[in-house]
Amino acid sequence: MSKLKKEFHVAVVGATGLVGRMMLNVLEERNFPVGKLLLFASERSAGTSIRFKGEEHIVRNIASTDFKNIDIALFSAGKTASVNYADVAAKNGCVVIDNGSYWRMNEHVPLVVPEVNPDDLINHHGIIANPNCSTIQLVVALKPVVNNFGLKRIVVSTYQSISGAGQKGIDKLKRELYEGPYTDKTEKHPIAFNTIFHEISDESGFSVEEIKMKNEIRKILALPELKIAVTCVRLPILGGHGESVNIETRKKFTVPGLRKSLKTFPGILIMDNPEKEFFPTVLHSNNTDKVYVGRIRKDDSVDNGAHLWVVADNVRKGAATNAVQIAELVALNNLFDFNKINFGVLEKSN
Amino acid sequence: MSKLKKEFHVAVVGATGLVGRMMLNVLEERNFPVGKLLLFASERSAGTSIRFKGEEHIVRNIASTDFKNIDIALFSAGKTASVNYADVAAKNGCVVIDNGSYWRMNEHVPLVVPEVNPDDLINHHGIIANPNCSTIQLVVALKPVVNNFGLKRIVVSTYQSISGAGQKGIDKLKRELYEGPYTDKTEKHPIAFNTIFHEISDESGFSVEEIKMKNEIRKILALPELKIAVTCVRLPILGGHGESVNIETRKKFTVPGLRKSLKTFPGILIMDNPEKEFFPTVLHSNNTDKVYVGRIRKDDSVDNGAHLWVVADNVRKGAATNAVQIAELVALNNLFDFNKINFGVLEKSN
Repeated sequence: MSKLKKEFHVAVVGATGLVGRMMLNVLEERNFPVGKLLLFASERSAGTSIRFKGEEHIVRNIASTDFKNIDIALFSAGKTASVNYADVAAKNGCVVIDNGSYWRMNEHVPLVVPEVNPDDLINHHGIIANPNCSTIQLVVALKPVVNNFGLKRIVVSTYQSISGAGQKGIDKLKRELYEGPYTDKTEKHPIAFNTIFHEISDESGFSVEEIKMKNEIRKILALPELKIAVTCVRLPILGGHGESVNIETRKKFTVPGLRKSLKTFPGILIMDNPEKEFFPTVLHSNNTDKVYVGRIRKDDSVDNGAHLWVVADNVRKGAATNAVQIAELVALNNLFDFNKINFGVLEKSN
Repeated sequence: MSKLKKEFHVAVVGATGLVGRMMLNVLEERNFPVGKLLLFASERSAGTSIRFKGEEHIVRNIASTDFKNIDIALFSAGKTASVNYADVAAKNGCVVIDNGSYWRMNEHVPLVVPEVNPDDLINHHGIIANPNCSTIQLVVALKPVVNNFGLKRIVVSTYQSISGAGQKGIDKLKRELYEGPYTDKTEKHPIAFNTIFHEISDESGFSVEEIKMKNEIRKILALPELKIAVTCVRLPILGGHGESVNIETRKKFTVPGLRKSLKTFPGILIMDNPEKEFFPTVLHSNNTDKVYVGRIRKDDSVDNGAHLWVVADNVRKGAATNAVQIAELVALNNLFDFNKINFGVLEKSN
């Protein structure tokens, strides 16, 4: 952080949520040069007090701010906040890093994973989108493959923790496990000892999560034609997502060559020793920021095929840490003087 | 069962284990015409008493029998029992249905899923192998695809319950969840809130489970060249396996046509209503014998591609029920007069 010139006024919108609280932890851990800290949430959560660097901060109602004196706002407060406040904040000169899905596919909004496509931040217009958790860890693992061997097709099945549904997901799993059988009639399926799916998008049968992954992977890797087959599954896991990934590359590769290309890429930690049965499990990722890759195997069922197993902490690298990493890039490169546009109209016309 | 001519003397070898006990439940539920029932286990478990149709049966030491007066023996007692006793039993005229992996790939041993390849039972030599749990549910879902559209390649990622590791797997998960943090130093990884892998086979990095699936699917479907990419994962689930399956067929198909071919195949129950988010979860399969298929979607990332989600109870259809179904076919078709061969020598020469 020694290159940073000053302190920045930072807002966290959705500060009381699972990701919002983790954003605060990560800002503190990474010693982000926070000047004034402002915490916002919906009216319901306003008034709560949250500790940051030893000081208590009162969470305010988001409707009370115009973001005019805030340099960077990290949003993780649900769709309504992203729709109603992100463009207002950007118009008032605040750089918004939004963890929600609403702005991700907007052509004027960069969708960024710092290890993968940092240059997409150049010429941003005040809103920068943080990708979906499942997408972030996967593009980190895929980028060195794209760079070294080219990428033709991926088939991915996800093993996602219930923390992807926020604190209420975690509470639901714990309640079912520790407070007896499932009784919540508003939920279709129990999660304890079960496999469930995300909300279905449309008559194609794909879930919203699956469609997000397809679109976001293509945008981040700048491979609009990349062939992607994806199935997303939620599991009775508290934290960490696993992904079983089949890749087909354009060029030939050897397994040692593939392993080396992954190993030397920033953000990746290889855990792959078949002899010692040393592989990443989701618990390995908990409370860390790495993307773990293991079970690297040749897939002989297709030309230039390989299997990868990719794991990360979905609340940290998959959300909070990635957002803070974006904030660091914005700060280090002084990307505060941006060209303002009217997102609202552009978005509505899509 | 009205076609059956008589009662059969049945042995269950490994009667005290998770699958052995379920074999007894299924024999009773399906009213298999059991004459004399003999229960065996290792010396350690001998002496236990197990109730069957209201009567107590003492479990005997397997070393005490020559299987001479037994018509059908269901084995689920581990490799040592399969290696040491299955061929002895067959040589003495007993039809062995072995749930273990030892005999499955022997060219003289049929590997049978009754809905898929019943005719492979004809001309058996006294040992019939019950496939791996993950294999059984998958080949039931694949067979109508093979019949109607031809099958070129499958990519499968499994979501397997810890009951695949037997009662000790279930006990481990419950202990970790309900008796505090993981402490068993003989196990590499906790299973609670985690994703783990099966034992790794060799330097290729594939697990024993993955290699079993590849070999067994090809043998059962009689498609020795079928292209298969497989990753197997164990989850903190008590019962039921899920499988995320990508198929590439040889002929064109429509999703309704694919759904119809699956729906009309014996043993399959379709649960697939995207609008109502009605899909199979592993809990749906618990204590049932169906193979559930849902999330049938076109996969546009490849020619003639589709996604399937396949679920079954791994201890029932994946083990005990499939074995009893084989026993029913043997009984119904009077397949007791078989040509005896020397398995031991043949197996050792492989």
